[in-house]
Amino acid sequence: MDELGKLPGIGSRTAERLTFHLLKSGDPEALALAEAIHDLKTRIRPCSICFNPTENEICAICANPNRDHAKICVVEQPKDLLSIESTDIFDGVYHVLMGHIAPLDGIGPEDLTIGELEARVEKGDVSEVILATNPTVTGDATALHITGVLSGKGVKITRLARGLPAGGHIEYSGKSILSDAINERREIE
Amino acid sequence: MDELGKLPGIGSRTAERLTFHLLKSGDPEALALAEAIHDLKTRIRPCSICFNPTENEICAICANPNRDHAKICVVEQPKDLLSIESTDIFDGVYHVLMGHIAPLDGIGPEDLTIGELEARVEKGDVSEVILATNPTVTGDATALHITGVLSGKGVKITRLARGLPAGGHIEYSGKSILSDAINERREIE
Repeated sequence: MDELGKLPGIGSRTAERLTFHLLKSGDPEALALAEAIHDLKTRIRPCSICFNPTENEICAICANPNRDHAKICVVEQPKDLLSIESTDIFDGVYHVLMGHIAPLDGIGPEDLTIGELEARVEKGDVSEVILATNPTVTGDATALHITGVLSGKGVKITRLARGLPAGGHIEYSGKSILSDAINERREIE
Repeated sequence: MDELGKLPGIGSRTAERLTFHLLKSGDPEALALAEAIHDLKTRIRPCSICFNPTENEICAICANPNRDHAKICVVEQPKDLLSIESTDIFDGVYHVLMGHIAPLDGIGPEDLTIGELEARVEKGDVSEVILATNPTVTGDATALHITGVLSGKGVKITRLARGLPAGGHIEYSGKSILSDAINERREIE
């Protein structure tokens, strides 16, 4: 009960409820959970190329010969990678920064995997680096820093489009969203 | 009480409360409201150029010589115009469609002010038409129709940028938002 209660969003009542559920449930169910948690900490590790969590030395995306390894999409967290993968329209590979630059929290560029990204670009064979950090102050600062690190290395640097979210409404969009949408407007051919 | 109860979002209880408030309040306050509502219906009319509601023949924006009259931003509703004005970054003029194409609701192109927009463009002196319809199915259909009407008339047609909303998070963005953001990504110079 004490151990479950340490998980985020699980209070003492929920921990109690979960504990009694595990007590009541069959051995295989409870032990499968125990083993899964054990495996998570012992078998899952960051991909040696892109830092996406994987059970192997290299993750399934980096190991896939059908992906375009010349296009690297840079994300802050593995969760962002999953979101982009869910769209099924990106055929390149990834680089997970494992966070963003946040001086107030004591997180500097050296705490992220920016050095490893630089090394991947310097090894050559990379045509485009897509900065897919969040459209927030910290995400933008991180993208700006990476742009500085990679500029002059002969690689095309792009960033995700900023503007109106599909399905949204102009009436309810904030000033910064509308400013982005106007400033980055596109010509219709 | 009956008349107030006809307003949207005002039920019988609220109508009762408002009525007794007006009964208690001084004559000037209640009569000022009556006059404002009367003026709204008798003095406010659509601008003869852009259809934005105004007290004059021509609205303050169309009458302003400091605005760039060669740039027309096309919006669905007057409320959208106010949202874009609030950003303080658009220095052109507007054209209010007074709705969007919605065949299921029986609203066709002829019910909007598209003919008047076409006439404005044909009169010349227009360099850019910015389609600022909502990033929705009906908004996109309306923009597509207008593009067809205006194409070949020698005017540059643009639309607001589509992508990640400023301040948002990739993790919580839907597939269509992320697809837009990837497809319309921009090169960083």
